[in-house]
Parts: sequence; C-alpha cells; structure tokens
Amino acid sequence: MRNLKLTIEYNGSGFFGWQRQENLRTVQGELEQAFLTLIDEEVAVEGSGRTDKGVHALGQVASVKIESKIPLCNIKRALNNLLPTDIRIVRVEEVSLDFHARFSAKRKTYRYEVQIGEDASAINCNLIGHYPYKIDFESMKKASKLLIGKHNFKGFCSADTQVQNFEREIFDFTLSKRGRKVVFEVVGNGFLYNMVRILVGTLLDLGRGKLAESDIENALKTGERKCAGITMPPQGLYLKKVEYVE
Amino acid sequence: MRNLKLTIEYNGSGFFGWQRQENLRTVQGELEQAFLTLIDEEVAVEGSGRTDKGVHALGQVASVKIESKIPLCNIKRALNNLLPTDIRIVRVEEVSLDFHARFSAKRKTYRYEVQIGEDASAINCNLIGHYPYKIDFESMKKASKLLIGKHNFKGFCSADTQVQNFEREIFDFTLSKRGRKVVFEVVGNGFLYNMVRILVGTLLDLGRGKLAESDIENALKTGERKCAGITMPPQGLYLKKVEYVE
Repeated sequence: MRNLKLTIEYNGSGFFGWQRQENLRTVQGELEQAFLTLIDEEVAVEGSGRTDKGVHALGQVASVKIESKIPLCNIKRALNNLLPTDIRIVRVEEVSLDFHARFSAKRKTYRYEVQIGEDASAINCNLIGHYPYKIDFESMKKASKLLIGKHNFKGFCSADTQVQNFEREIFDFTLSKRGRKVVFEVVGNGFLYNMVRILVGTLLDLGRGKLAESDIENALKTGERKCAGITMPPQGLYLKKVEYVE
Repeated sequence: MRNLKLTIEYNGSGFFGWQRQENLRTVQGELEQAFLTLIDEEVAVEGSGRTDKGVHALGQVASVKIESKIPLCNIKRALNNLLPTDIRIVRVEEVSLDFHARFSAKRKTYRYEVQIGEDASAINCNLIGHYPYKIDFESMKKASKLLIGKHNFKGFCSADTQVQNFEREIFDFTLSKRGRKVVFEVVGNGFLYNMVRILVGTLLDLGRGKLAESDIENALKTGERKCAGITMPPQGLYLKKVEYVE
C-alpha cells in the first residue's frame, strides 16, 4: 500500500463541487475515474475539504491510497493526460500511510476576488465576484482585524450546517486593491459552511456603509447570522493553500 | 427608425459562437432575445463579424435598427439586466442610419493569449491557449514582421471557406511576453477563416524551431496551407477592437 499526496488546481465553474455525486460532474469523481483508468483500482481520493459548486482551487490537497507500483515520477503527467483541462495536478508526493488530507490539515488559506463598481466583467464572470457599490477600502481593511483570533463564528455560517462547534481561529486576514479589483486572503485553522463568503460580504457591506464595526462585534458576540453581511457568490472564491505539520 | 451601435464584451466559452442558430446558445441569439423582451421588437443584431465557438470578445461591435423611443441613456443598463453575465454591453451609441457594423468596419484588432511550457492552467483553461514547448521569443517577434503588409493569405486560411479573394492587409503585429504568457496582437483590414489562429500557430511553430522564416515566405507566395503552422485552439482568441471611419 502507498499513500499519495496530490496538490490540485481546478476551475470550479464546470463542476457540481468537489464531492462525488451520482451522474454529476464533480472534481473528486473525475479524479477517481482517472485513477481507475490509469491503475485499474477503485480508489477514494480524500480532499482536505469539500468545495461548493462554482468554487475554484489553486492548491487543493487530497490523499489517496493505491496498490499500484507505478513510478512516482510518471503519475502527474499520466493523470494530467487523462483529466479534463479544468483540473490539473500540480504536484504528486509519496507520504507516510498515516497522512490524511483532511484530518492532518493545520491551516487553510482562501482567497476571494471581487470587482467593485457598476459594470461587471463578462470575460471573468465565472472567476470573480461582483459588488456594484462604492466602498471605503481603508475602513474594510481596519475592520478585518476584528476577525483575527479565536472566535465563535456562528454568525458567519450558513444555517444549513451539521456542525456543533463554531469556534475557529483566523491567523491572518489581508486585503489588497488593484484598480477596481479587491482581493481578500484569509488564513485559518478551518472554516465553517460559507464562512469565507460571509466574511467577505460583511466587510463589503461595511465598506459600503451598510454595516458598522459594532455589527461585526455583535455577530461575533451573539452568533446571530443577521448581524453579519451578505453571502458573496461562489465564483470569486479560491482554495489557495492547505498546510500540514512537517 | 433609429440605428444603435453596441460595443459588447463576451466570454465565448458558453456559446456556440456569435451567429444565431436554432436551439443553440449564441451571442447574437441572446442579444436579440434581450431586445425582444426590452422593446418588444424582433430585431436583427448585426455583428462586425462572426466569432467561432469558444472565441471571446472585448470589443465586438454590432448595429441594430429599432423603432422604440426608449431613451438612449437607459438602454445599456436595461440590456445588462436582461442579459446573462457572460455577455456585457460596454457602450451604446446612436449612429446614422447608414452605419452597418460589418460593412462599415475599417480595421479589426485581435488578441491571442497563450501559455508556454509543459503545465497548463486549470483556472484559465477557457481563456488562454496552451503551447507545451520551449520557444525562442525573439525569433518569433522578428518573423512576425514578414506578415505585415498586403498579402495573399490563402496559406493562412482554413480550407472550408467560401471566400474568393484572399488578399488582406495587416497593419501591425505585436508580441509581448510576461512570465510564461505570450500575447499576440494583430491589426488588419479583415481576417480570413481561422487566419489569426493559424498566424499565431505558425509563429509558435517557428519559435519552437519546427518552421523557418522561409516557410512563412513560401506560405505567402504559394498560398499553400501546408507551409504554415498549426491552428491554435479558439479559447485564447479575443476580438479586441473594431474601428470605423468617423
């Protein structure tokens, strides 16, 4: 038995999300099909987490146990030849058998890209969110610091979740601006359902003047979803990096 | 009767090209449907030219004759509210009745973007071509100058064309490089079927060392398609600009 760690880039716009589903095109489904074709084994490709329909990944990580003795150096190119062009294997490593992409993950970095102002881009319509209002960028940057640290993020989580424990830690939250595009990057030990999209929507609503810093503080204190801002759409969201303890 | 000039951006990856076709999603079809909904008129939206399945536009121009007295300043926003997000109206102008987007066009600029090297991008798989070989950029830049001027471009045209006259004039051809991405921009008075994609494929094949400058000269002299290089795929191609005499 061998255990492989895969680093994967994908464009989520053509998929019904990461998770394998009967008769629907999913990233996990395509990867498992490629392994079946390549080494004739029915494997389970375990991701660091699911991504929703329309969400992209620059560096999703998955682990997969195989029996095949196929040389490590051939696997990446062979998989990329079998996979559709909207999924690319970036790296393949052989790791110890106790490594699991989900349970071993220590930090994740998500990126959200949004275009500000009335006109949206047609070319990038599947690759960037759109917020049609003027924003005060500096006030958003300042407010993002309130979110750093260990908090109960129940107020920043969609209602339809099975989770019991809403405590998560955000290690870093950065915002940058180039022309009409704003890029958010948030690093944490884990994220609740839709949490990044709600964090970004909340900062944008604050930047527009619809919310104040006290609303963010209330959302953190009370866990009330209604204190926070809108849920931004999936197409601006990228799973950028998953980190593990060496 | 009024005549409108529309400037349109679209992402071609979700369309069966520009031209209206029964039961297929096309850019022209979506635009005509939006006018039908907005002003209740069955109009013909005439493009400066067709673009193929998968080809994008940053500045396609179309003309359309309408009867409606809808204020000019409302049309852009109203159309954008009706259109899908992969088509955006950039500008709407009222022009004289003898303006026709196709027959009045004097110059067109096409852009082709290509990623060089073994690994392709998943995120941009519908927005950029891929050429998996090492290239000598300076030799391509030099060879592109051979193509400028008035030539018989039959050697750079796909066989399935109805055209009789293969003479076209290229006014400018520029290449730029940023990291692994090469951008070609070509300005001409008109282009034959697949001409830009073959011009780019020919320069890439030359950059790789598979073709020489003499092959380009032979293609121009003999009109033989086999002297030129490959046809690059549609997803890297953008209709950037259409110019008219004022």
